[in-house]
Amino acid sequence: MIIELKSTIAKINAEKLAMDIKAFHISFNDKSYLITGSGVKELPVDLIEVTENYWVFPNDLQLASSKFLKTRREVKIGNVVIGGNTKNTVIIGGPCSVESEEQITTSAKFIKDLGLQVLRGGCYKPRTSPYSFQGLGLDGLKLLAQMREQFGLTVITEARDASHIDEIIEYSDVIQVGAKAMYDQGILRACAKTQKPVLIKRGFGTTLQEFVQAAEFVLAGGNPNVILCERGIRTFETGTRFTLDLCGVAWLKEHTNLPIILDPSHAMGYAYGVPDLARACVAMGIDGLLIEAHPDPSVAKSDASQQLNHTQFESLISSLKPVASSVGYNIL
Amino acid sequence: MIIELKSTIAKINAEKLAMDIKAFHISFNDKSYLITGSGVKELPVDLIEVTENYWVFPNDLQLASSKFLKTRREVKIGNVVIGGNTKNTVIIGGPCSVESEEQITTSAKFIKDLGLQVLRGGCYKPRTSPYSFQGLGLDGLKLLAQMREQFGLTVITEARDASHIDEIIEYSDVIQVGAKAMYDQGILRACAKTQKPVLIKRGFGTTLQEFVQAAEFVLAGGNPNVILCERGIRTFETGTRFTLDLCGVAWLKEHTNLPIILDPSHAMGYAYGVPDLARACVAMGIDGLLIEAHPDPSVAKSDASQQLNHTQFESLISSLKPVASSVGYNIL
Amino acid sequence: MIIELKSTIAKINAEKLAMDIKAFHISFNDKSYLITGSGVKELPVDLIEVTENYWVFPNDLQLASSKFLKTRREVKIGNVVIGGNTKNTVIIGGPCSVESEEQITTSAKFIKDLGLQVLRGGCYKPRTSPYSFQGLGLDGLKLLAQMREQFGLTVITEARDASHIDEIIEYSDVIQVGAKAMYDQGILRACAKTQKPVLIKRGFGTTLQEFVQAAEFVLAGGNPNVILCERGIRTFETGTRFTLDLCGVAWLKEHTNLPIILDPSHAMGYAYGVPDLARACVAMGIDGLLIEAHPDPSVAKSDASQQLNHTQFESLISSLKPVASSVGYNIL
Amino acid sequence: MIIELKSTIAKINAEKLAMDIKAFHISFNDKSYLITGSGVKELPVDLIEVTENYWVFPNDLQLASSKFLKTRREVKIGNVVIGGNTKNTVIIGGPCSVESEEQITTSAKFIKDLGLQVLRGGCYKPRTSPYSFQGLGLDGLKLLAQMREQFGLTVITEARDASHIDEIIEYSDVIQVGAKAMYDQGILRACAKTQKPVLIKRGFGTTLQEFVQAAEFVLAGGNPNVILCERGIRTFETGTRFTLDLCGVAWLKEHTNLPIILDPSHAMGYAYGVPDLARACVAMGIDGLLIEAHPDPSVAKSDASQQLNHTQFESLISSLKPVASSVGYNIL
Repeated sequence: MIIELKSTIAKINAEKLAMDIKAFHISFNDKSYLITGSGVKELPVDLIEVTENYWVFPNDLQLASSKFLKTRREVKIGNVVIGGNTKNTVIIGGPCSVESEEQITTSAKFIKDLGLQVLRGGCYKPRTSPYSFQGLGLDGLKLLAQMREQFGLTVITEARDASHIDEIIEYSDVIQVGAKAMYDQGILRACAKTQKPVLIKRGFGTTLQEFVQAAEFVLAGGNPNVILCERGIRTFETGTRFTLDLCGVAWLKEHTNLPIILDPSHAMGYAYGVPDLARACVAMGIDGLLIEAHPDPSVAKSDASQQLNHTQFESLISSLKPVASSVGYNIL
Repeated sequence: MIIELKSTIAKINAEKLAMDIKAFHISFNDKSYLITGSGVKELPVDLIEVTENYWVFPNDLQLASSKFLKTRREVKIGNVVIGGNTKNTVIIGGPCSVESEEQITTSAKFIKDLGLQVLRGGCYKPRTSPYSFQGLGLDGLKLLAQMREQFGLTVITEARDASHIDEIIEYSDVIQVGAKAMYDQGILRACAKTQKPVLIKRGFGTTLQEFVQAAEFVLAGGNPNVILCERGIRTFETGTRFTLDLCGVAWLKEHTNLPIILDPSHAMGYAYGVPDLARACVAMGIDGLLIEAHPDPSVAKSDASQQLNHTQFESLISSLKPVASSVGYNIL
Repeated sequence: MIIELKSTIAKINAEKLAMDIKAFHISFNDKSYLITGSGVKELPVDLIEVTENYWVFPNDLQLASSKFLKTRREVKIGNVVIGGNTKNTVIIGGPCSVESEEQITTSAKFIKDLGLQVLRGGCYKPRTSPYSFQGLGLDGLKLLAQMREQFGLTVITEARDASHIDEIIEYSDVIQVGAKAMYDQGILRACAKTQKPVLIKRGFGTTLQEFVQAAEFVLAGGNPNVILCERGIRTFETGTRFTLDLCGVAWLKEHTNLPIILDPSHAMGYAYGVPDLARACVAMGIDGLLIEAHPDPSVAKSDASQQLNHTQFESLISSLKPVASSVGYNIL
Repeated sequence: MIIELKSTIAKINAEKLAMDIKAFHISFNDKSYLITGSGVKELPVDLIEVTENYWVFPNDLQLASSKFLKTRREVKIGNVVIGGNTKNTVIIGGPCSVESEEQITTSAKFIKDLGLQVLRGGCYKPRTSPYSFQGLGLDGLKLLAQMREQFGLTVITEARDASHIDEIIEYSDVIQVGAKAMYDQGILRACAKTQKPVLIKRGFGTTLQEFVQAAEFVLAGGNPNVILCERGIRTFETGTRFTLDLCGVAWLKEHTNLPIILDPSHAMGYAYGVPDLARACVAMGIDGLLIEAHPDPSVAKSDASQQLNHTQFESLISSLKPVASSVGYNIL
């Protein structure tokens, strides 16, 4: 249950009330809310007098629910606002991993020259083998910060586990919670304490319900700037790396109030399919797209097969604009 | 292995050669081909003199392979040609089941009035329960034939099992092999003996490789007019009925030479998601779309939740045209 | 709803009543039953006087439900009764395919010498490629009949599609409905009209609910002798051919009244894992086991990797007896 | 590649060699090994003189591979040794969560009285909703330590994320890495630095190959005491909570050298199926079993539906002994 308190209730009293009923307390749009588990179906008698409004839910999809907020939330990524009525589709491009100053500088310049605004690049790679390239770590984060300064780009990178989440929050403009880390409460609770935007990727074995509940950890903890990212689920089909779940995206658009970004690169796993899929994603009317591109994919230290080269990426971006336009959206 | 025989080889001799090496023999584009299993990697010595050209394959995806034919095959559905360089996206609309003369007449008139050309409607329903509506059977087929005559529409309906395949071939312009029937060799072998177009739906538990191999049964049996239809696979996600596999569609476009039609209605299972998904499908550049629509979905005898009403369907078709146009395709 | 009619109601009247309410009518254990869809939750007023007893169900799992019959049904396979309180685990052994008289005779003699009673062998193979060995067809069926006569064995073979179901019913003692054919209503309806036992394999993409509903087609059509066979489902894991669903078996034991046979060979796909899995299956307390064995797996025309050789099979059977005994069952 | 260095090479030199070729260096069974990625297929020339033996692998399953060690590793859990030739099946019992001193004391006493030696109980619960019971945290760990002292039991509890891994390593005898945390390198790297046994649960969306690679992180980091735990994977079947993958267990027995423990409780999700499944697991010949039991499951704060009550648990243990015995194993 979500309880909106009357505006006359002071914040300190709201917090006391929250403690009394073991609820979360958040401030959002200048209002105070208490959030209990969805098992609570009736407004506690003691709270009737202080309650302005309340919502009952069939399950723990509450703050993220379209039953709570009818319009999609706005989230600001650098200078770009997505969600709400903006009809903006923001492109997040860049290499899978930050590999060297030269490689990330080439990438950043390329993104900038295309008129795009958001650069991605992994520093702590959640590899499944200890014998693969594990990322540059803090050195990578510093290179990203340098790109931000040098090119005026917004940067996004991924937290692999809770042991370095503070670094990520410090250096990155948008905190990416990876598909393998999205149940990680050490990360989610830390993300709840910042106001930076948090992009949560759906785990490849994660139901839509669980996925949105990961967002609830951040929202209930006090950070309203959460973005959902579908990036493919694991199915019996192995001809492609994962299976991009666009039915799931339709479900998220219907049942949640959070902006939605799609990642066709990881879903497909092969560069040849990325452009067609990216156009399909954009035609759904979405808030953003995450596409991997590398100056020379053949020498990439991770995900070599799925990264576009810069010619392919540029050509893709050109083709996305009329598709976005055909459904009333703008590519940024 | 596919072996193209020299044009000097008479058909009767080609057939003898096929029998000698236990191969299939087909005529296609005025040429004669022998097709063996993909285990054969070297041209049999005895055939060297009669061979014009040959192709070796890593697996039994052969006649359907883009290694054999570089351009997508053209298939004619009524008056519409799809595939090849046509850039046509044909819309197949209509109710899940033919329920009554009134219902199917209303549907047919509606499709006709929208300027569309292909009407769908199930007569033998592959229900999973014996206690559900099973379809009108032969009476339904006769109603479809009546719609063809009355409105000049092309009709498509589904074969549930081999016991009535001859009826379907007789009455339907396009033979649909349903997701639950696509391994049915009784159906596939019968489809190989006609020249009518055959639309094969991917089973919801079927790999892409197996799916295309079902097409190989029809192609190797002598019918080149095969269309693939992706309609959602079964995954762990149950928030939607199935998971539309657009990564798989990218794979099919890369690895096969067959036209591809998509069915977002069955994948999604809920009307609310169908328009967004249909636009996504069209943006991939595909040969057709299969959308369920019913004059009054609330009283439909099957798939009530996923069928659009006529207002929704008309609005969807309008919105598809600019999307198709943005990727260089035409809605027909 | 299942309605048990009073014993005073003549069969001809029962049939009339069934037609009136569009229900199935069956005779079972000397009683007459009407079966409607599970949507019917209240006894029709007109039937109150003729009704002895009735059962309401939450879904279309009705005749197969443990809510209808508390004890597992008994089914006779040749001379062996399984189910009920028999605590018999019948072993069904033999090659994937009948390949030649010599091969199947060696197999039959081997099964007989081990003291087992049921021989399997495929004649119509549901291969996914037209270029693979498709089975001996009717010649294979005749060889199986010959084995029955020569060795006094019970034989079981599979219907691939409805086009040859009559042959299978004529020649086989137990009709196997394969995993790819279990939605085939042509087969299921034909099986309903015989009284021979029908072993239905679960499709690899089939939910438990759908699986049991396939059995409902046969049961509601008048044949009570149905056996369920779990043989592995398709999951994201490809290290093994399929994933044997023993949680599903626990579900079937709890929710249905049908005997359950398991097929670890097809699930595993590799001979090395079959013995361990077979022992696991037997320890669950099941009605039978289906194990593929071939005189020389290395030359088998289908499923070479998963068939045991005769030494391995004999050793496995020896090891199964103490396991069965430890849970109070007998290997037959 | 794994390289066994000659016994004459001092440890300090071994470490230098490791750094030179960017390999891991571990000591195991009084020998020194260097481990590189599996991409290295030929012994580096510089190392030929110092190499005693080496192994090349097709993929990054190396230290855990049965190609490296032919016999299963021995791991000591409290006073019980599992793996190797011990033929011990250790039972790990106890509640899902530590809820109170009274509850865990009742549980501990019960386990002790049954003659069992290992108590489980979660303190940091990896719940998918922020609104569910999250565990007692450090207070729970202290209660477990108290049970160890009071009853002489070995205790095992789960690390949810890297933020409290040091606490878990301090308090628990066996460190459990949960299904949702098994990609967590913060946890895995910390586990590599202790010598305490580490039980890694397979993620429900994790392939067998990835699962074993998680173990490689711990093994390559220097801790040889790793145990694999299969606990069910997520499939399309939702009649049960997960699908216990015993085909996967057969694969693990064939391809790895690590002890294997199974958890039928989480796989099934319903108490009714746990006993049958537990017997199936034991019949496979495994190293341990993890079963949830609660003094009163109806009031359990997590996983209420799947926990056995104490009567059921006691009865299950009795029934496991003859099954274990039938395959030559002992229940401890």
